[in-house]
Amino acid sequence: MAVRVDLNISLDGFATTTDQTPDDPMGRDWARLVEAYVATRTFRSRVLRDASGEGTTGVDDRYAAAYFAEVGAEIMGAGMFGLHAAGDDPAWRGWWGDEPPFHCPVFVLTHRPRPALEMAGGTTFRFQSATPREALDLALAAAGGRDVRVGGGATVAREFLRAGLVDRLHVAIAPILLGRGIRLWDDLRGLEQGYRVTSEVAESGTTHLTFSR
Amino acid sequence: MAVRVDLNISLDGFATTTDQTPDDPMGRDWARLVEAYVATRTFRSRVLRDASGEGTTGVDDRYAAAYFAEVGAEIMGAGMFGLHAAGDDPAWRGWWGDEPPFHCPVFVLTHRPRPALEMAGGTTFRFQSATPREALDLALAAAGGRDVRVGGGATVAREFLRAGLVDRLHVAIAPILLGRGIRLWDDLRGLEQGYRVTSEVAESGTTHLTFSR
Repeated sequence: MAVRVDLNISLDGFATTTDQTPDDPMGRDWARLVEAYVATRTFRSRVLRDASGEGTTGVDDRYAAAYFAEVGAEIMGAGMFGLHAAGDDPAWRGWWGDEPPFHCPVFVLTHRPRPALEMAGGTTFRFQSATPREALDLALAAAGGRDVRVGGGATVAREFLRAGLVDRLHVAIAPILLGRGIRLWDDLRGLEQGYRVTSEVAESGTTHLTFSR
Repeated sequence: MAVRVDLNISLDGFATTTDQTPDDPMGRDWARLVEAYVATRTFRSRVLRDASGEGTTGVDDRYAAAYFAEVGAEIMGAGMFGLHAAGDDPAWRGWWGDEPPFHCPVFVLTHRPRPALEMAGGTTFRFQSATPREALDLALAAAGGRDVRVGGGATVAREFLRAGLVDRLHVAIAPILLGRGIRLWDDLRGLEQGYRVTSEVAESGTTHLTFSR
């Protein structure tokens, strides 16, 4: 039952992008940041539900498959679920359509209570006002002996890292410089102590960096 | 005649360290940042003039050998030469002893004129008040058809990168988080455009990242 974080960051350490516009609500930078991940066969089949079998099958795909394997519960911030963008809209059900790719209980950290959402495919969104430790205890109890992922955003992931709650951090570093956004590594001086740190370069040029303990 | 930058940085992008004390003027972080480089056979023989043949011989050593190969002139900031630490001491001759490891003309950027220093082994330090472009023209003229390295510090290297003057940037990324210092990547959004970016992981866990054009 490991507690895991998996994120995509730029060479300069940004886990978020800043070039969103009303006409391009994701922005071009986000596409560049996740390009290698989105190109994998696993992402295409698991998130896009593309049954063609197309997509890359190298190192990036191995990490994409590991991303989805063995996760029994997920924790995410209100921003990642979309509550900041959607405001208090009670009809908001997340970014992922009727069948989100989580297929497990998802705990969304928010100070504003909302009723739980049962989605197709086994995903349940539960909205909790909780500290990282409290949220983790809830998620561990719900994970059925499998791993818990702290999905993000970057600020939430960093809170769990700073609190010493994360057993495995995997970042996919895209070979681009974004220059602005939220830095994953802020205030994490010395994080490597107590972890084994390994790196691997994918065919795409993405570097997969893993802290594990 | 390529213009090159080679630097050691942390995972969070810091090219300088901040834990220097009067009792430990280099600081412990610097030793951690350059640990894999200092362990190479090339560094030991070339900088420490250790004739034992000891030191690592893998990927890190290949980059260390490339660091010293084909450089015909070097440019560095006043801080890297030590003028900030030494103040105006006219007897200051740099950090590297009587026979510095450069073995070529070195242009030190400073607004305060100083006489040139002829050192043993072919290193000459010349002190210039010059823009990056002017300094580069001087160095190219002195390099005898070989490469020019912009040695540092990080702020000087970034000025040359921002001015579009660098043909090859190599950074050795140590798997540590320093949390503070001077960030190499600041204000370099989009630098990857116009370069080919490659990465390679050494046995030490250091990731060697190269921008080339």
